[in-house]
Amino acid sequence: MIVVMAAHATETEIKDVEQRIADWGYGVHPIYGAERTVIGATGVPEADKARYMESLESLPYVEQVMAILKPYKLASREISPTTTVIDVKGVPVGGNQIALMAGPCTVESYEQTWESAKACKEAGATILRGGAYKPSTSPYSFQGLGIEGLQILRDIADKLDMKVVTEVMDLRLVETVCQYADMLQVGARNMQNYDLLREVGKVKTPVLLKRGLSAKIEEWLQAAEYILIGGNPNVILCERGIRTFETYTRNTLDLSAVPAVRELSHLPVVIDPSQGTGKRSLVMAMTKAAVAVGADGLIIEVHPHPDQALKDGAQSLTCENFTQLVAELKPIAAAVGRSI
Amino acid sequence: MIVVMAAHATETEIKDVEQRIADWGYGVHPIYGAERTVIGATGVPEADKARYMESLESLPYVEQVMAILKPYKLASREISPTTTVIDVKGVPVGGNQIALMAGPCTVESYEQTWESAKACKEAGATILRGGAYKPSTSPYSFQGLGIEGLQILRDIADKLDMKVVTEVMDLRLVETVCQYADMLQVGARNMQNYDLLREVGKVKTPVLLKRGLSAKIEEWLQAAEYILIGGNPNVILCERGIRTFETYTRNTLDLSAVPAVRELSHLPVVIDPSQGTGKRSLVMAMTKAAVAVGADGLIIEVHPHPDQALKDGAQSLTCENFTQLVAELKPIAAAVGRSI
Amino acid sequence: MIVVMAAHATETEIKDVEQRIADWGYGVHPIYGAERTVIGATGVPEADKARYMESLESLPYVEQVMAILKPYKLASREISPTTTVIDVKGVPVGGNQIALMAGPCTVESYEQTWESAKACKEAGATILRGGAYKPSTSPYSFQGLGIEGLQILRDIADKLDMKVVTEVMDLRLVETVCQYADMLQVGARNMQNYDLLREVGKVKTPVLLKRGLSAKIEEWLQAAEYILIGGNPNVILCERGIRTFETYTRNTLDLSAVPAVRELSHLPVVIDPSQGTGKRSLVMAMTKAAVAVGADGLIIEVHPHPDQALKDGAQSLTCENFTQLVAELKPIAAAVGRSI
Amino acid sequence: MIVVMAAHATETEIKDVEQRIADWGYGVHPIYGAERTVIGATGVPEADKARYMESLESLPYVEQVMAILKPYKLASREISPTTTVIDVKGVPVGGNQIALMAGPCTVESYEQTWESAKACKEAGATILRGGAYKPSTSPYSFQGLGIEGLQILRDIADKLDMKVVTEVMDLRLVETVCQYADMLQVGARNMQNYDLLREVGKVKTPVLLKRGLSAKIEEWLQAAEYILIGGNPNVILCERGIRTFETYTRNTLDLSAVPAVRELSHLPVVIDPSQGTGKRSLVMAMTKAAVAVGADGLIIEVHPHPDQALKDGAQSLTCENFTQLVAELKPIAAAVGRSI
Repeated sequence: MIVVMAAHATETEIKDVEQRIADWGYGVHPIYGAERTVIGATGVPEADKARYMESLESLPYVEQVMAILKPYKLASREISPTTTVIDVKGVPVGGNQIALMAGPCTVESYEQTWESAKACKEAGATILRGGAYKPSTSPYSFQGLGIEGLQILRDIADKLDMKVVTEVMDLRLVETVCQYADMLQVGARNMQNYDLLREVGKVKTPVLLKRGLSAKIEEWLQAAEYILIGGNPNVILCERGIRTFETYTRNTLDLSAVPAVRELSHLPVVIDPSQGTGKRSLVMAMTKAAVAVGADGLIIEVHPHPDQALKDGAQSLTCENFTQLVAELKPIAAAVGRSI
Repeated sequence: MIVVMAAHATETEIKDVEQRIADWGYGVHPIYGAERTVIGATGVPEADKARYMESLESLPYVEQVMAILKPYKLASREISPTTTVIDVKGVPVGGNQIALMAGPCTVESYEQTWESAKACKEAGATILRGGAYKPSTSPYSFQGLGIEGLQILRDIADKLDMKVVTEVMDLRLVETVCQYADMLQVGARNMQNYDLLREVGKVKTPVLLKRGLSAKIEEWLQAAEYILIGGNPNVILCERGIRTFETYTRNTLDLSAVPAVRELSHLPVVIDPSQGTGKRSLVMAMTKAAVAVGADGLIIEVHPHPDQALKDGAQSLTCENFTQLVAELKPIAAAVGRSI
Repeated sequence: MIVVMAAHATETEIKDVEQRIADWGYGVHPIYGAERTVIGATGVPEADKARYMESLESLPYVEQVMAILKPYKLASREISPTTTVIDVKGVPVGGNQIALMAGPCTVESYEQTWESAKACKEAGATILRGGAYKPSTSPYSFQGLGIEGLQILRDIADKLDMKVVTEVMDLRLVETVCQYADMLQVGARNMQNYDLLREVGKVKTPVLLKRGLSAKIEEWLQAAEYILIGGNPNVILCERGIRTFETYTRNTLDLSAVPAVRELSHLPVVIDPSQGTGKRSLVMAMTKAAVAVGADGLIIEVHPHPDQALKDGAQSLTCENFTQLVAELKPIAAAVGRSI
Repeated sequence: MIVVMAAHATETEIKDVEQRIADWGYGVHPIYGAERTVIGATGVPEADKARYMESLESLPYVEQVMAILKPYKLASREISPTTTVIDVKGVPVGGNQIALMAGPCTVESYEQTWESAKACKEAGATILRGGAYKPSTSPYSFQGLGIEGLQILRDIADKLDMKVVTEVMDLRLVETVCQYADMLQVGARNMQNYDLLREVGKVKTPVLLKRGLSAKIEEWLQAAEYILIGGNPNVILCERGIRTFETYTRNTLDLSAVPAVRELSHLPVVIDPSQGTGKRSLVMAMTKAAVAVGADGLIIEVHPHPDQALKDGAQSLTCENFTQLVAELKPIAAAVGRSI
């Protein structure tokens, strides 16, 4: 780490900081500039870094302390030069083939899920998405069918030879959801629910980790690190829009997160254009952009009758939309050397 | 709710929307303007509103659907014209007396907590704060002492005749934390962890509900509604800074949330200037502002030796700072007709 | 507009609002709901809307006033079902062909500009970009060559048969810049410099209007409206990244602005991936996404030796990068039915 | 500056960076850590810093380049340990007395301005505010009375023995506005209109520099630096709310900017609670907070009849509100050792 001393720091104060760093057992490398003294510290382990940085920052004669190393290791690009391919019960995510996950926002009934899943499968989706436990801003909104929803998903996926991804919100239900799902989704609102991250780190089921509404990419990778460090190496990142001042779109889908994660991490990245925009009319265009930008997968809400949906109808594609979209994605995928 | 038809909507399409609203059993009130037709719907219950709004928005001939009623009821100002006074085992929060909560960011040891608590108590604090379970962005950082931390807090608080507020992160631990704490804190990162909200809604222990990093005031009140609807009427809101583009401060402390909540809700509001700014040098000034703006309480990090803190040393006041601060707050409180 | 009365509004207060609307000469359409009265007002002209909305909002018994109509007319989609094609001295922007604008961030010398322009032209660019007047956050940074820069741009563009787009910052220089440039750029920082907008509204030279760092799409279209209303119909919008909390990228490039503007306006939209990301390593991927999402043009910074650039070297492509990029864009453009 | 080499940087690449820094004539200070090499460069002048940082960042084997020194000098705290007192024609801003600026948002007529000004003066305001040239998001809104508005302000201020602050938007009008006004306001939308900053840097009339909607504090101080470097030392900063995701308030008033600027700069800071909140009901509370936090001045919109205002009626105080507010501010000012 780099310690920038205050402009007014005295020689004694500079010595004090040097002594502290030496006392902790780290290398001390002062640089005496004309206007500021800067002290480099080498050999500081990750586990102590935050603490020592704060300690030094709390001194009145220190202006700023800057980290040099990234605050994650297992999630970092340095682990592997190629993107890690996660195996979702036979469906690879992170390889040349763009993984297509689709289905209803929420499992409302067997029929609705079947209708959506069947159309998705026919269009080329291999993983069925659908919410059994729904995070709702309002306690008055529909909260999902729960275990019944899980059973519907499993049954339909089996019949259609698809895999299942569904959200787990309550950490007590991780095991239960694992019995029905092939991939667990940790939602944006729970990205920093560390106890939940620890729980999903204990299983081997792949985890689709959505980016928090106001999470920096670095924090998102640290959340992934919680899962990886727990022993579950199967983490897939999912960008689903961040919160900004813009109100026309529900969120601002940050597609630059794809190449950014590619630089910083070996984990695959998936795009959720439905949550990311909140408007059906924008989903089609943004999905194409997601393929072009290099996403490893897509997760899209498809409803047989969006105007009758219990949740997120406004951002759901119809089955026809989805079929058409996948057809339009194929040449774009080809143009970037991928298949879908 | 108000449905704005698209400019190009035909008469048939307008009729279709009117029919849908009528079929749901609600009042239909069309207004035919020169450029747009607008249709008001009356009598729509909260539980169906989100769904019907999305349903109509999913129609291509509808431009926009706007809600009229606030999406919370029990938390709303209409419940009570005065601020509700929450009783934290004898310490009122929401009345004329500004509640003073202080203590270390994290319980590191008995000695450190004792030293901080004693100074806080002497300066006038009545509620001891301190983290036993700590949400850390990095899995490599200190995660708190757990149950040992809870015991330290309880023991010291009892000796000093203080009450205890501490964070609960893991919903399986709500009961345990209730055994030691007089008030549960739900942290900013868990503000939309609905299962945790439901759990703390089942007990009667007061809950200090921190505003999420990117939560609109309306969403914060909906999170409170989850707790209230669960049966726990003792909710205290806590503004602790929101995430913005500014990087000089850790967060942007939104003091306007105090008068805003005052308009919208009957629940008391507390300010956390330590998390809110992340810099000791700003905490003093912002705490004064918090009192002047009308906060019902303050929650402040105090560490006997911030440069030795395991966490958040840079934003902790020293015991001397805190004593001085409280002295300086008294005349401001008096100036706004409150006491501290 | 729609006026939502406060829950506690009395009959007299409701009558007062109705009377005010009637006195202004507009249609009054009250809807008496169970919990709120809502009053629709029809026939309110745009010029008075903001004022009357504020007037009613200032009444204590009015909860909220909502606009129904979009606050722009000439820029709106309702003017034309197809995207308007702007003619930049023979180069169409807004048609099937994606307009390729490229060149150095800043004109530093004749040689540097020539080297960049030649490579851009050979790769397929038709419009040469380059800053003669540079908006710099710091007064200590290079501010551009001024008129000499304009001369260099014009001379090189003529030799290479390219058109010139360059920024005008000082409204006194609009005429001068028009003598050298084929398209004027209004920068993000000046998007709400209304006097500058009025000046560029007086000429017929096309204007590339960049979106402000924190401008909502609606405000961007209102800025375009200033130019259109002034008499210059040749406005091209340019998304160049918005300011968010993320710090890894310089800005967050909001690609959803392309389909969003497509819904709301008939004006063409161009993407600036260089400013939008601030990192060369992200520019390539985001440019592909821009083509896939449907952008009508691209404006890209290319420098023969980015490590010797006086400005924005870190986000400039090399000439080789650019040549390769254009080759990679062609099949994507074809995949979305466009050419480049 | 500090150059962080990429993890994979070879010895040759490290040498290359060292050589570049040496070639530029600066001190080279490498620190060889276990995982990264870091190179400090000393003696880099401000004028070259941005360029050299970008140059190094553009190299593939450089991970990051960090600045050590603040990018402003004349505005910095290091210039003076005390706040500079700016003399607005006899009214000091920055001293013990909190400067009270008040008046209508917009000059609509002589009568309206007189009524407002008279009430403000009687309540204790010494500087009359009022817009003659108004920046309006919509071209259809009222744009101000122009020169007639300036005359009204001057005439009324003279009669009431007040000073005048008013916005200048068009840089061609700086001289004209200086003939009527005692202080020029540069609005939030023009904070990075560098040509305007240069123009107001050429006169000696004090400048009230509003913070841009999405300006970091550092950028705001750099904008001040433009004026100072131009030769006008009389700059007063004004926080007026930043743009965030919150929609209940018009902007988020960042009161922590006051102590933050206090640390970083010697320039006085004024708060605008009217623009900062956009709601009359919040203005009173936030003004109290502004005094408590240490603001050097206040600028408040007061309208005799807000419901008849042509602009910003919803955020204007009535004359009675203002009189009451000033009375309530006095004891708070006293509590923080100031007078008003």
